[in-house]
Amino acid sequence: MIKKWKTLERKQLARTPIFGLDVVLRDPPFEADPASFYVVDLQSWINVFAYTDDDEIVLIRQYRHGTDSITLEIPGGAIDAGEDPLDAAKRELYEETGYKAKSWESVGVVEVNPAIQNNSCHTFVAHGAYLAGEPEPDEHEDIEVELHPATELPEMIKDGRITHSLVVAGYALVVLNSKPQ
Amino acid sequence: MIKKWKTLERKQLARTPIFGLDVVLRDPPFEADPASFYVVDLQSWINVFAYTDDDEIVLIRQYRHGTDSITLEIPGGAIDAGEDPLDAAKRELYEETGYKAKSWESVGVVEVNPAIQNNSCHTFVAHGAYLAGEPEPDEHEDIEVELHPATELPEMIKDGRITHSLVVAGYALVVLNSKPQ
Repeated sequence: MIKKWKTLERKQLARTPIFGLDVVLRDPPFEADPASFYVVDLQSWINVFAYTDDDEIVLIRQYRHGTDSITLEIPGGAIDAGEDPLDAAKRELYEETGYKAKSWESVGVVEVNPAIQNNSCHTFVAHGAYLAGEPEPDEHEDIEVELHPATELPEMIKDGRITHSLVVAGYALVVLNSKPQ
Repeated sequence: MIKKWKTLERKQLARTPIFGLDVVLRDPPFEADPASFYVVDLQSWINVFAYTDDDEIVLIRQYRHGTDSITLEIPGGAIDAGEDPLDAAKRELYEETGYKAKSWESVGVVEVNPAIQNNSCHTFVAHGAYLAGEPEPDEHEDIEVELHPATELPEMIKDGRITHSLVVAGYALVVLNSKPQ
């Protein structure tokens, strides 16, 4: 029977604009000395599979600083403090692409990385997406919006055009949980 | 046309046993001042969908320090420096569960988190998995091995028994890429 460890102490080692780095001292539930573990402290995230009435999906191309590469992804971002995940999804879709949608569906939540991160990612489907205005990217965001036939999504994952783990996980959630509208 | 930023300087701000925290100064490919970004520097990872000849999947239950919770996952871990991803998959499956397998299949690679992390995760399928010895967990690893009918995997993701994003992404890769053996 696996048991939780007991947290004895937690403190922040470093802070960046996006995340903190915490060290946590924990006492194991078995015979061993307490030990320190390191946790990347983040707001939870949302991402959005937005489909137009022509069954196209709204994708974004952007430069990513973690991998130092240009990626093709779905819109997404961090939930603001106190913000509802669905509101964050609507906000990020509009800010990054200028799209709004007629109806929204939640298809699931994953834990991004239970070993070293404390946040979740909520995946939404936006149905009847339509261009409603100009994107409002954050400073330093340089985003190109691309529409692709939604039926190509599995092929884009298979051939490596889409490689972001949270987009691939979100695709599984859409297939498993999205209801016909 | 999205372009890459130019890296002007990179230095390590902090180092933990598992990952580093780097700050990278980059010059944008558009009219703006250089800016600093923060990257979690990690070895790449592997994870394994191991199926027995009775079509059961080998899962592990363990306490996770990032989320401070007990999770149900597939075996996995970090690739050692210079290690082949497949060798890492074989090693981690055995160390965490005591299982070996008759044949192995690579089903794809995802980038874990292009925004703030620099590593990938390789997903493998192990066919004909069998108990070959005693697990050899790392210090501080307390792992319970569980066999579940492989057909229950989608249901376990749907109902939230499995929530790790890389397991959910790996499941999508298995469905899209695994070949009948």
